[in-house]
Amino acid sequence: VTIRRLAVVGTGLMGASVGLAAKRAGIEVVAGFDADRSALEAAVARGAVDVPAHVLADAVMDTDLVVVATPVGAVSEVTRAVAELVDERCAITDLGSTKRRICSELAGVAAFLGGHPMCGSETSGPERARADLFDDATWFLTPLPDSDPSRLEVVTTFAASLGARPLVVEPEAHDRLLALVSHLPHALANLLVAQVSEAEADRLDPLTLAGTSFRDLTRVAGANPGIWAGIFLDNRELLADALAELRGRMEDLEAALRAGDDGAVLSSIEEAAARRRQLAARERRDP
Amino acid sequence: VTIRRLAVVGTGLMGASVGLAAKRAGIEVVAGFDADRSALEAAVARGAVDVPAHVLADAVMDTDLVVVATPVGAVSEVTRAVAELVDERCAITDLGSTKRRICSELAGVAAFLGGHPMCGSETSGPERARADLFDDATWFLTPLPDSDPSRLEVVTTFAASLGARPLVVEPEAHDRLLALVSHLPHALANLLVAQVSEAEADRLDPLTLAGTSFRDLTRVAGANPGIWAGIFLDNRELLADALAELRGRMEDLEAALRAGDDGAVLSSIEEAAARRRQLAARERRDP
Repeated sequence: VTIRRLAVVGTGLMGASVGLAAKRAGIEVVAGFDADRSALEAAVARGAVDVPAHVLADAVMDTDLVVVATPVGAVSEVTRAVAELVDERCAITDLGSTKRRICSELAGVAAFLGGHPMCGSETSGPERARADLFDDATWFLTPLPDSDPSRLEVVTTFAASLGARPLVVEPEAHDRLLALVSHLPHALANLLVAQVSEAEADRLDPLTLAGTSFRDLTRVAGANPGIWAGIFLDNRELLADALAELRGRMEDLEAALRAGDDGAVLSSIEEAAARRRQLAARERRDP
Repeated sequence: VTIRRLAVVGTGLMGASVGLAAKRAGIEVVAGFDADRSALEAAVARGAVDVPAHVLADAVMDTDLVVVATPVGAVSEVTRAVAELVDERCAITDLGSTKRRICSELAGVAAFLGGHPMCGSETSGPERARADLFDDATWFLTPLPDSDPSRLEVVTTFAASLGARPLVVEPEAHDRLLALVSHLPHALANLLVAQVSEAEADRLDPLTLAGTSFRDLTRVAGANPGIWAGIFLDNRELLADALAELRGRMEDLEAALRAGDDGAVLSSIEEAAARRRQLAARERRDP
């Protein structure tokens, strides 16, 4: 399967980066559409879109693959519209950070196959798009049991050609994993920034004095509020479960601290140290 | 006040970095002592100590300033021992990450003045020492009401000569601030790593798939367990209070998520965004 013509629907940071990475991979034509005319023009200026279209139909006609790169709340509706317009063999995929709701809503759309490259950014907009955004990123593919195998192959090959590592998982497993390793840390960064900035105690300014480790930790806080609110709400049960589990762990640590239990405090840090070393070892083995 | 001869007691990462920064600042002689002979030899090899001493008395005699750079649990005892050995005009300071307990235990030691440069690292050992570790770091000084003003001036000038920004605060205000901007994020990093690594659900490996933002967030997890257990326990009430406050904020977010309350979820992210922008603006104004 060779992709000759690609369409990107939604040309923000992610969509425009798909365009740039596709050009780098040698795909001949990248058509693009965005309801926001200025985002489309910026993607053209950045070199991410060759053929800007002013209506959706012009962007997606005669394409081999359509990438829907809208916020998660719009993916299903846009994908349905695209499916009405494309040729019979065309594949449609998305980049949404949640997969259960989207894949279930689009279960009847034969051309669709859910996807999610894990390479977000605290920035946004086509101006910041990068051809190397997907290099070495895990690109989740979440087919349903009756998804079309040949389209799965198209999207898998496409993700790999953009430098990513395709990984097939079930939508539920995807959302459970992301709740833990992405949505939970992101939510914590937001809450920590709020807590620290409200504590203007003792005439010291905590945010200014916070130091680099706090800044690293909260780098993603407040990024792209509309996009992240959609992600949190899509994955609300699993995120709420992850928050509740972490609260339980925090309560255990609080109890150990209040009791002055050195052994429990030390062993909780040593456990984290051992886990962190495992992670570092895996990174070295499988970079 | 000119410091001609400095002694560093405890030549791990922090003590050896003080030695290197002091040499860079033009201090003539840096004497050093460490109960661990190999740490002392490594500090000499690194160029951080000119005069290694095999007993504490040899290191601290005839010095203008002694920097006690041990883990927080040993600072009071070591400082008392040093105070018995030094000349009448010598100043003694420490680098401990907590200040209330230490300053209260040492309230009767006239030569002592508490200090804490905020520039930790997830690494350790004199081999990793750096002359620029303190550049632009806030260096807290926590005198008590009856501390000696001339020694405060010595330590303030010394901290500034190492590239840091001295800031005088009360020990209680210091520990409250650090609970929030350092100990709380550090504890969260540990708990997150443990939670994620235990969730080997769905045959996916969460730690490997976690991606760079999670890795940034948990970079400090498990660093130097013995040192951090001491810090957490020294500051246990304030850290437990900070954890409890964050748990309350997490509960509010969970409730908003479970209720599907878009408005509350969005406004919590927008609040973090506004706070993060304030922080960025301050960094630009006051780099």
